[in-house]
Amino acid sequence: MTVKHLSELSAAELSEMLSSIKAAYEAFQAKKLSLNMARGKPAPAQLDITMPLLNALPADADPISESGDDTRNYGLLSGITEAKKLFADVLSAKPEEMFVGGNSSLELMFACLQIAYVKGIAGCKPWSEQGTVKFLCPVPGYDRHFALTEYFGVEMIPVPTDENGPDMAMVKEYAENDAAVKGIWCVPVYANPTGIVYSDETVRAFAALKPAAKDFRIFWDNAYCIHHLVENPKKPLTINAACEETGNRGIFYQFVSTSKVTFPGAGVAAMNTAKENLDELQKHLGIQTIGFDKTNQLRHVRFFGNAENMKAHMEKHRAILAPKFAVVLNTLEQEIAPLGIASWTKPEGGYFVSFNAPKGTAKRIVQLCKEGGVTLTGAGATYPYKKDPDDSNIRIAPTYPTVEELTQAMELFCIAVKYAALEQLVK
Amino acid sequence: MTVKHLSELSAAELSEMLSSIKAAYEAFQAKKLSLNMARGKPAPAQLDITMPLLNALPADADPISESGDDTRNYGLLSGITEAKKLFADVLSAKPEEMFVGGNSSLELMFACLQIAYVKGIAGCKPWSEQGTVKFLCPVPGYDRHFALTEYFGVEMIPVPTDENGPDMAMVKEYAENDAAVKGIWCVPVYANPTGIVYSDETVRAFAALKPAAKDFRIFWDNAYCIHHLVENPKKPLTINAACEETGNRGIFYQFVSTSKVTFPGAGVAAMNTAKENLDELQKHLGIQTIGFDKTNQLRHVRFFGNAENMKAHMEKHRAILAPKFAVVLNTLEQEIAPLGIASWTKPEGGYFVSFNAPKGTAKRIVQLCKEGGVTLTGAGATYPYKKDPDDSNIRIAPTYPTVEELTQAMELFCIAVKYAALEQLVK
Repeated sequence: MTVKHLSELSAAELSEMLSSIKAAYEAFQAKKLSLNMARGKPAPAQLDITMPLLNALPADADPISESGDDTRNYGLLSGITEAKKLFADVLSAKPEEMFVGGNSSLELMFACLQIAYVKGIAGCKPWSEQGTVKFLCPVPGYDRHFALTEYFGVEMIPVPTDENGPDMAMVKEYAENDAAVKGIWCVPVYANPTGIVYSDETVRAFAALKPAAKDFRIFWDNAYCIHHLVENPKKPLTINAACEETGNRGIFYQFVSTSKVTFPGAGVAAMNTAKENLDELQKHLGIQTIGFDKTNQLRHVRFFGNAENMKAHMEKHRAILAPKFAVVLNTLEQEIAPLGIASWTKPEGGYFVSFNAPKGTAKRIVQLCKEGGVTLTGAGATYPYKKDPDDSNIRIAPTYPTVEELTQAMELFCIAVKYAALEQLVK
Repeated sequence: MTVKHLSELSAAELSEMLSSIKAAYEAFQAKKLSLNMARGKPAPAQLDITMPLLNALPADADPISESGDDTRNYGLLSGITEAKKLFADVLSAKPEEMFVGGNSSLELMFACLQIAYVKGIAGCKPWSEQGTVKFLCPVPGYDRHFALTEYFGVEMIPVPTDENGPDMAMVKEYAENDAAVKGIWCVPVYANPTGIVYSDETVRAFAALKPAAKDFRIFWDNAYCIHHLVENPKKPLTINAACEETGNRGIFYQFVSTSKVTFPGAGVAAMNTAKENLDELQKHLGIQTIGFDKTNQLRHVRFFGNAENMKAHMEKHRAILAPKFAVVLNTLEQEIAPLGIASWTKPEGGYFVSFNAPKGTAKRIVQLCKEGGVTLTGAGATYPYKKDPDDSNIRIAPTYPTVEELTQAMELFCIAVKYAALEQLVK
């Protein structure tokens, strides 16, 4: 049987289809499922593969860093030497341009914004005294990034993205002509939620920016840099390599963490930026803490040994995650593609699939899923101020449920998409 | 031989004494000692007693909290249930009024100030929009507290302290009549650096405050609450009990940590305040992080089991620290007391001895010690803006060096005190 695009169906056919979908939805509700797919959380099975980490720094371990410092005591604000090397290798960055922190890269991003807001950076006045301050926000993007800039009252400007990354003509136009624009949120590899990898041309365009504001920084959140779903992943140009070419070394703050490598709650986060930026940030960071958890940094270094082993560890995650993404993509391909009503991304890494529902139906789909027992990320969450102008984008987070749960959840999702699309057409 | 007070000596005798002290100083310099007593750091021997902590959550442990939550994953911003109970027991507080964080109580204090500064609390405007904002600072006090308020441009008002705590008449006068006064720094038990314990009357006076500002908070840093140096420590009234009596439940933020119980770099910090304060703070804290390291929280709970065991663990620290404090106090008693030129505290707990040198000599003494090979906390550090009006107070931190090193360091210190005092008298 060939399924027709919904646009080819008559009013009667649409109406009939809606009735049968309603019945399917009610049958599903009767199952009383309760699943949460709201966040990009690793599954318990993924956490289990990291349990040996907990034995990597036992009671009889040598707690002394290779610098000779005692990791148990106060001090070493910027982290232990061997952790800087490890993360530098992961990012192809320089160890002396690394800062290794606590369990949260979000916390480091917040700190960078807070320092610019309260104290000012690069010789500029604090943002709190600069009047309106703006940030560029590629969309769809990560809700927690947007929440950070919103916290500081920063005006967020959505920037469209395609398969190569943000619209760089627009980025250049804003960054180079408006000194109120202080930065941009980027997830360059397997972007949240689209899963796209910025093209080398995009990375070069970032490295070539000549911002109007001296305190403009690219917040380069490389959260998923080694989180591949395919065997032969792309090898994108790094921001370090691109900025080495342009000499624009101080323009970015890069972030990375092991939140989705080891444990989201007890991983290690790091930051990479030019030495002069690090020096400035550390002057301020040293007020708010004496140092981050260096024992956990050492535990991670002892566990992994080197970046290669960390990448090998990611293969174990891939073995768990790839089948889940396959469930999502296969179900969408089978159930939704033939109807010609929606589009979605097919990521080669990261934690999400970005789904574009018929305009005006995303909120309704999320509501239908919720009432059917599956909590999704709120519709609109992928836009600044949670405002998706098209009410279309939904972030699908396949990682946490089991394959069985996910299969059910995707069944419901597809029913909900059809339900909402048909409602709109039948009305 | 009876040693005379310096005030009883003739000019010639003073001059002669200075010459012999100079000789002693130079002899000491020749030893080329290099010791750092600048910070209140635990000694390696103290860290060693906590090494079994690292085995308390091994690879085959159950990582699930008693609430059913996976400590390895995202979430549980306010900490795990069992850690709240543990710290509540330590503080005689209610578990539901606890927030358990990362490895740094300073970080939590910073967060509380930052929230008041950027967003405002208790329905008040952000401090950044309130014009001049002030904080009361009992002196001598903790330099890192003062650095936090200085960071946010808060005007710091020194408040004298005696053996019962801060001058409560002055505290009341400022807090109740000036709405620009937003808080006060307190270390109620074994204060940094004086080692005094606030009297019950002082604690009651705090609990009875009726501040002019709705966003006034007592920052009650209970860093040393179980850090006794004597067998039968005082049992001071808790701020919780005192505020229970007055109904002034929301007036304090209390802080505590295991930084000097387990590891300074990898301990657990907690905060205790009224539920409505916690709810407000968490709304903001949830922006800057998804959660603190719950795995380390669980590791601590599994290691200690309960507050009694944590207190028993402190006995091991006492066994190491009490002899060191004895070295300091005995040396001062022997070398300086007979001269009638200085005073110092005799703490029953905590990490410091507070030394009051002849007015105008503290900087000189610290300089002499430095040039003799012993780095002390900078003179003035115990005052806001590092300005000790008398140039008199020096914080002695006996914990880090070994008894042998400390014996040498105190020998140098006493030489330096005499040197500076005599210089002043001979001039």
